[in-house]
This record gives sequence, C-alpha cells and structure tokens, in this order.
Amino acid sequence: MELDQIYESIRDDLDKVKETLTSISQIDFSWLSEQLSYVLKETGKGIRPALTLLSGRFYDYNITYLLPMAVSVELMHTATLVHDDAIDKAEIRRGHPTINSMWGDDIAVLMGDYLFARAGEAVADTQSTRAVKLFSQTLGIISSGEINQYRNSFNLEQTREDYFKRIYGKTASLFALSAQSGAILSHAPEEAVEILKNYGDNLGTAFQIVDDILDFTSTEEVMGKPVGSDLTQGTLTLPAMMLMERYPDDNPVRSLFKTGDKKNVDLAIEMVLNSSIIDDCYQVASEYCELACRDFDLLPEKSSRQALLGLAKYVVKRSE
Amino acid sequence: MELDQIYESIRDDLDKVKETLTSISQIDFSWLSEQLSYVLKETGKGIRPALTLLSGRFYDYNITYLLPMAVSVELMHTATLVHDDAIDKAEIRRGHPTINSMWGDDIAVLMGDYLFARAGEAVADTQSTRAVKLFSQTLGIISSGEINQYRNSFNLEQTREDYFKRIYGKTASLFALSAQSGAILSHAPEEAVEILKNYGDNLGTAFQIVDDILDFTSTEEVMGKPVGSDLTQGTLTLPAMMLMERYPDDNPVRSLFKTGDKKNVDLAIEMVLNSSIIDDCYQVASEYCELACRDFDLLPEKSSRQALLGLAKYVVKRSE
Repeated sequence: MELDQIYESIRDDLDKVKETLTSISQIDFSWLSEQLSYVLKETGKGIRPALTLLSGRFYDYNITYLLPMAVSVELMHTATLVHDDAIDKAEIRRGHPTINSMWGDDIAVLMGDYLFARAGEAVADTQSTRAVKLFSQTLGIISSGEINQYRNSFNLEQTREDYFKRIYGKTASLFALSAQSGAILSHAPEEAVEILKNYGDNLGTAFQIVDDILDFTSTEEVMGKPVGSDLTQGTLTLPAMMLMERYPDDNPVRSLFKTGDKKNVDLAIEMVLNSSIIDDCYQVASEYCELACRDFDLLPEKSSRQALLGLAKYVVKRSE
Repeated sequence: MELDQIYESIRDDLDKVKETLTSISQIDFSWLSEQLSYVLKETGKGIRPALTLLSGRFYDYNITYLLPMAVSVELMHTATLVHDDAIDKAEIRRGHPTINSMWGDDIAVLMGDYLFARAGEAVADTQSTRAVKLFSQTLGIISSGEINQYRNSFNLEQTREDYFKRIYGKTASLFALSAQSGAILSHAPEEAVEILKNYGDNLGTAFQIVDDILDFTSTEEVMGKPVGSDLTQGTLTLPAMMLMERYPDDNPVRSLFKTGDKKNVDLAIEMVLNSSIIDDCYQVASEYCELACRDFDLLPEKSSRQALLGLAKYVVKRSE
C-alpha cells in the first residue's frame, strides 16, 4: 500500500490539518509570520496527525476534537525538530536550510517555544485534560530523552537497551501519543486505547530504526539531509551498534568516537553496506511492526484497521 | 506591608508550591535531577504563584486545583528564564551561575523544554481546559514577545508603545494569567475574573518598570545580576527612553547603540541617576499600581483583597 492509499479515509481531514497549520503562520506579526510559514510549509509525510485521525476512526469519530489533536502532535514534532537542529547545528532539513542556519540559534529557540505554545493551545481545544496531560508527559519524555542523547554523544559504552530507550524518547513516545489520543478522543474503550497506544509505540520504534538505517543507505538528495549525520554527531544507532558487536576490537565507529577523525564516517558506512547489518536491522524493524499489530483482531473491523496495518508495512518499506 | 505579611493567608499553600517544585527535581534520572534541583531551588519571591493563590481566595478556594496552577506559572516562569539566559548569554541569575554558564546553551534549551513540559503537566492537573488554553496563549505571547525584543535590540526607533507592548509580553501577560487563572479555578463570576486579570496585567507592568529602574539604581550584590544589563544587551527600557527624550541629539544610549562602546553604559547610568528620571519612572509604575486596583471595591471583602492591595504597594517599594 502506498501512503496515498493508506490515507484515503482521512484525506479531507488531513487537508484540514494542513490548512490549520498554514493559518497558524498567518499571524499579525509580519516577521514571525514569514518564518512560521517557512517552517510549517514542509511538514513531511504527516504520519503523526494521520495516526491520530486513523486511530480516531474506530469509535465516535469527531473531527472537532481530533483535528486540534492532530494539529498539536504535528506542531510538537516541528517544535522539537527546530530545537534539535539548533542543538545539532544541522544545516539542512527536508531539503531546506534549517531555521538556525537561516536566522541563528537564538531565533530557533524562541521559534520552537512559540510552536510549543501553539501546540498547547491546539491540545486545549480537544477539551480533554487527559489529552493535555499525556501531551505534556510526552514532551517531558522527548526533552529528557534529548538531554540523555546529548549527554551520551560519542559514548561507546551504550547497550541496545540504551538505544531502544533513546528512540522511545525521540520518536516512539510521540507516535504513541498520536495514536492513543485519537482513541481517547473518540471514546474508545480502555482496551482499545491500550492497543492503539501499543501500536504507536512499536510503529514509532520501527520508524526510527528505518530512519537510522536510511542514514547509512540513502542519499542526501532523497533524505533532504546529509547521510552519516548520526555518526558525525556521535549518535550510536542500531547499524553502528551491530558493526561494533561484529568487530569489537577495532572498527571505524570506535576510531571515530575516540579520535573524532571524520574519514571514519565513510569507512563505517562502507563496512555496514558490505555486510548483512542492513538486512538484520530491517528484520528488527519488521519485528516491531508485527508487535505493533499483534492485538488488532480485538479492534472493530473498520477501514482504518486495514490502513494502520498498511502503515506498518509501509514504514519498513519506505525509502525516505 | 512586607512580603511576609502579604503572603500570610497563603503561607502554608506557598510552602506546598515549594515542596511540589522540589519533588519535580527528584526524578529517576540522576544527572537531570541535579540540574533541576539547581534551577528550582532559587525561585525568587514567588509572586506569580502567590497571585494565583490570593486571587483564588475570593470565591471557592480549592487547593486541589489552585496548587497545580500556582506550580505551573512558576515553572513556566523558570523555563522562560532558562531560555532567555541562554539567548542573552547571561552568566548570573539570582546570585548564581546560570544553567547555560554551568552546562552550556544546548542543555539550557533542553532543560527549558523539560520545564515547559512539567508546567504543562501541572496545568493539566487543574482539570480546566480554559486554564490550559490561557496558559498556552500566554506562552505564545511570551515567546513571540521575546522574538520581538531580540529583533529590536540596539534599535533606537522604539516608542513607549513598543516598550509597553514588550513588557506586556515579558512580564505582565504571565502576571495576568497567574491572577486570572486563580479566579477561574475558584469559580469567580466573569466580572471578578476580569478585575483580577486586569490587576495582574497592571501589576506586572509596574513590576517590570521597577525591574527596569533597578537595572540602573541597584547593585549586583542586591539584584543577583550585573547592573546595566539591559543597556549592555541593547534593550531600551523606560529610563533609557526618558534619557533619549530629554537629550534627543546626543546621549550615551544613542552612542552605545550606534557604536557598541560599552563605556556608554556607565555614562548613561550616571546621567539617569543625576536627573529626575528615576522618580518619573516610579511615578509611571505607581500609576499602573493604581490602575491595577481600580475596581477592587467590586470584589468580596476578603483578607486577600488587602493582601493584593499591599502587593501593589510593595511592588513599587521593593529594592530587589
């Protein structure tokens, strides 16, 4: 299934999400408006808002509450990217210069804060303090996870457990919120809320593993950012961990982290590509996708069940 | 009235606010815990939480909802300070090294985000989506106001209107939220909500004017940060504006902003202190305090009415 097909049942509402994001940039403050429209124009694949809308389709689908939630998860995602790029000194995101590279780190910090504020406003419009609480808890998980990642950059003493904890903070927690909140706002029974939260969590884990694979296998043209970014920033992802496991004594990742010599980035990529590591990582991602859908039989037979199953397949097949 | 006397009726609950802030730093993540306890230990005069609690005393005072609100306004305040200090490269705050000077700008950004998240969690505990919405709107006002201030640093073409707009974003908006939310969460009638919101707004304006005065008249020892910081960072405050108005052709503020020569900071301070500008600024602050209390006759005769009147007097008398 292609993304277009997966999104079919929520196409109109996803368009509304886009319209709302556009309207947020049209504020009475011309300079900020320019930057907001810049950052909100390229919103990627929209998987997080789609998760909210699709998860909301099983019971009382009410767009009045689902729309602001879908908007808020996308805004929170964008805000965290703006802050992350400033911290990582990233220059390119989604094929365009980052906010920090265009207007400096300080503006990026304040712009991220402004986006958090607008995300908070949107989540308040759900009229659900449970959604607000989960939203804030997720932001706490994401930001403390980022602190953890930052503290552990260029640290070789990390286990797979550390890795999965980190990508939960980075990606899976927001995927889980996106799906879980859709269920809550459509008055799903608690069992279904749990199933959809579990779906988001595992799907997000698989999504991030694939992201980490693409940082080795893709090209800057396709990804919209340089390959090897993770290694360059000292972030140990699953492919790099597998390389370390296979060559524990001497390998380019170890050399890179110890000496900072950037030529090791290309060497590490080459070694990974000339091994079975990529296949093995895809295998791990696929297992998470299976986990994501394990209790789907218990959900009502709606079209969104097929869509979410399709999304789980798409996530490990995607090339960008 | 001294602050102790003003806070008398809410002393126990203010202690609970402090305890809750302390408990927030005791999380299962030891390194972050150290920094959180560092940033949450020195919480200043606690005027914002006090405003929430005192404003909540006129009708159904319910600490279950007022406590998380009071905690959330203090956390939001702390989060914005952490980000502002990183942006301003400030080294000292409340007599201690800032987060950015201790652990770097990147950690300060993420720490601020984490504090926003905890503030959001707390406001969700009020069970009031109206409070959440106002909270988020206020964060939007604060962060877009900061962007505005940042963009206008070292800009001589600013009017008093610009100044009052700026200090609304910087301080008055959060004072207004603190008071207004206390009223809302104690089920005050809408007229009283408006009176207390207006109180917070005008009190915050007066408070910030006095802050801007103290940046000229105080000492680093008393303030816990260097004097003349505003001018050094190119921020045009009321005393500096009055100096510009009195000596439109040539004055040290103009020279500082045009040439960047820091010796003009001391010259400007000297000229301001040798004029009636400080008295005139206090006069403006006092007028805002009068405005703050103008409709107080319409509020129920509770002890907190006296306390808030006392706070309005305290704000223009304070020396730190």
